[in-house]
Amino acid sequence: MHGETRLGILGGGQLGRMLLQAGIDLNLYTLILDPDPEAPCKSLCNEFHVGSFADYNTVYTFGKKCDVVTIEIEHVNTEALLRLKQEGVRVFPEPEVIKIIQDKGLQKEFYRQHGIPTAAFRLLQNKMELPEHEDFLPAFQKLRTLGYDGRGVTRIASSADFAKGFEAPSVLEKLVDYEKELAVLVARNEKGEVSCFPVVELVFHPVHNLVDYLFAPANISAEISQQAQEIAEQVIQAFNMTGLLAVEMFLTKDGQILVNEAAPRPHNSGHHTFKANLTSQFEQHLRAILNLPLGNPQEHSAAVMLNLLGEPGFSGEAKYEGLQETLAVPGVSIHLYGKKITRPARKMGHVTITAGTVAEATQKATSIKEVIKVKA
Amino acid sequence: MHGETRLGILGGGQLGRMLLQAGIDLNLYTLILDPDPEAPCKSLCNEFHVGSFADYNTVYTFGKKCDVVTIEIEHVNTEALLRLKQEGVRVFPEPEVIKIIQDKGLQKEFYRQHGIPTAAFRLLQNKMELPEHEDFLPAFQKLRTLGYDGRGVTRIASSADFAKGFEAPSVLEKLVDYEKELAVLVARNEKGEVSCFPVVELVFHPVHNLVDYLFAPANISAEISQQAQEIAEQVIQAFNMTGLLAVEMFLTKDGQILVNEAAPRPHNSGHHTFKANLTSQFEQHLRAILNLPLGNPQEHSAAVMLNLLGEPGFSGEAKYEGLQETLAVPGVSIHLYGKKITRPARKMGHVTITAGTVAEATQKATSIKEVIKVKA
Repeated sequence: MHGETRLGILGGGQLGRMLLQAGIDLNLYTLILDPDPEAPCKSLCNEFHVGSFADYNTVYTFGKKCDVVTIEIEHVNTEALLRLKQEGVRVFPEPEVIKIIQDKGLQKEFYRQHGIPTAAFRLLQNKMELPEHEDFLPAFQKLRTLGYDGRGVTRIASSADFAKGFEAPSVLEKLVDYEKELAVLVARNEKGEVSCFPVVELVFHPVHNLVDYLFAPANISAEISQQAQEIAEQVIQAFNMTGLLAVEMFLTKDGQILVNEAAPRPHNSGHHTFKANLTSQFEQHLRAILNLPLGNPQEHSAAVMLNLLGEPGFSGEAKYEGLQETLAVPGVSIHLYGKKITRPARKMGHVTITAGTVAEATQKATSIKEVIKVKA
Repeated sequence: MHGETRLGILGGGQLGRMLLQAGIDLNLYTLILDPDPEAPCKSLCNEFHVGSFADYNTVYTFGKKCDVVTIEIEHVNTEALLRLKQEGVRVFPEPEVIKIIQDKGLQKEFYRQHGIPTAAFRLLQNKMELPEHEDFLPAFQKLRTLGYDGRGVTRIASSADFAKGFEAPSVLEKLVDYEKELAVLVARNEKGEVSCFPVVELVFHPVHNLVDYLFAPANISAEISQQAQEIAEQVIQAFNMTGLLAVEMFLTKDGQILVNEAAPRPHNSGHHTFKANLTSQFEQHLRAILNLPLGNPQEHSAAVMLNLLGEPGFSGEAKYEGLQETLAVPGVSIHLYGKKITRPARKMGHVTITAGTVAEATQKATSIKEVIKVKA
């Protein structure tokens, strides 16, 4: 079968690259669409097409060459995907799901409609409406569309912040007083088989809002862990989707779990699975969308994952410092994304530290973080 | 550093393909040389060159484009590699080592000279000499060069078999009455750091002499395991080589370990390491030849690996039967090599079964072997 499966991926960044890496095992014929002629996937696929995944005709024409189309980013043209689906191309995640998820307003309404616990929110057309919601502060204002990796989010603590509000349609989300941020990767194949990865814990960088540390498994009770997995399953079932879904959650100080947002694709919260779990998130996504039985997502090692971000103050051709020292630590592997150019806070790679316990891995991670740097 | 390392691999088959897969993590610029325009590596490298790795000029010209040159097969032009080395290209394993290993006669003499335990042998020019060695039978006659995957080996039990002897220079190796066949993968980097993978046990197919089952770890005593690893280290130190060395051994019925042969590259006896060890053999080889610290080779799971060979009686475009059933077994992954055409006993892929114990994995393996088939 697989010798002939033509898999198209919208987006050719690091997530696409790791999908291709896992896909080598499955004899796929791979096609990538990305606007950047130097995208990380460039030399690792059968066909690399330069073009915009947001453009109807580009996506449609690309999709017609494929048996199965998937995404590594949500900001794609869903109208083209809907037409492709109507014309018999298998599109996973389903375009209807992408359409909801790419609009944070629709996404929040979806959770409310399906009884999925999520922080209180209001929908705004522009920043002129902010004063009507002063009673709702402190809150985060999030652009409904095209936010990514911390962009498109601003904190509105009081009326003093109204001026920095976004002009475009947005979600005003009540600030959650949380203990931890958790994530659960859950996969579902066409047969409806569902499988959750163990819950992980994410620590975000306070300024650029990117994952700074990931701890796997999360340091939470068995009860909370089970609840988090049940909620993730509830979300994927509600979406009735095929593929991998990353569900980010808040664990509030009073022990409640609230869904923050979801991404219907491999996600930064699962990078460690390549090195610490029996099945990686990338293999799991491929199994799900190719309607293969899902793999065993169990972890075999505890892990900490660090994002390797471009160092502040450096832009230009990337140079990696401290690789020797980092790789000398037992249980440490690095994964670089093949990006020639670094910029402050650009995701350039990640480091996975496996160990018997998260505490042991964390100790190693803390010193590695001091040593490894991406400069120019 | 790695953004700029241009790694050339002589050979573009499944071993090269898995090296490329592991190399994605390290941002390498990769070049492949293979005579087959449809080789498994074709679409996974930066540059794919069609040409013979046995030809002096082809290898030399190819090597001049690289910073580091390695191999996935021994049958390469070592004269060209020696010249490349003199001209500053980093060639690992060293051409001098490849030269010894590609000639089974030189290889056996090397073991004898270095006090490495190996089966008794005699060197023959042609089959006319066989009668002089009747006292030495039963034995295996092995072609000194170009044998591969069981080709170039014939059993000479008595004078009745002389007619089927090889005409070319060969090694006549006394038959070893062995209990088990073992293998140890050992790596060494330029700094001289050495690291062994746990010992594995190989069961070969009685007819086509390819690995049928691999058990990891081997079911042997801690003492034998330690001895096997010590011998592997002795071999790599004697060769003074850089890279990964697969050392195949016999464990005789009286508890002796004899080195059978070695391969200075990733090897079929390490395919399970992608799924069952903290560092794969492919990552380890790359770390060694790029002079990075070696990774932790420890296993996190027990494993059985099955080669997926072309079914007898089928030649043509490969079709895979039983993938669904195979992948439905928890802990099972498949790895297909991207070969369009199957032939009887052609290596088309492998299956890795991980579990808590080898016994548990073996039970699963036995039923999987009945189900998964490569036909045409």
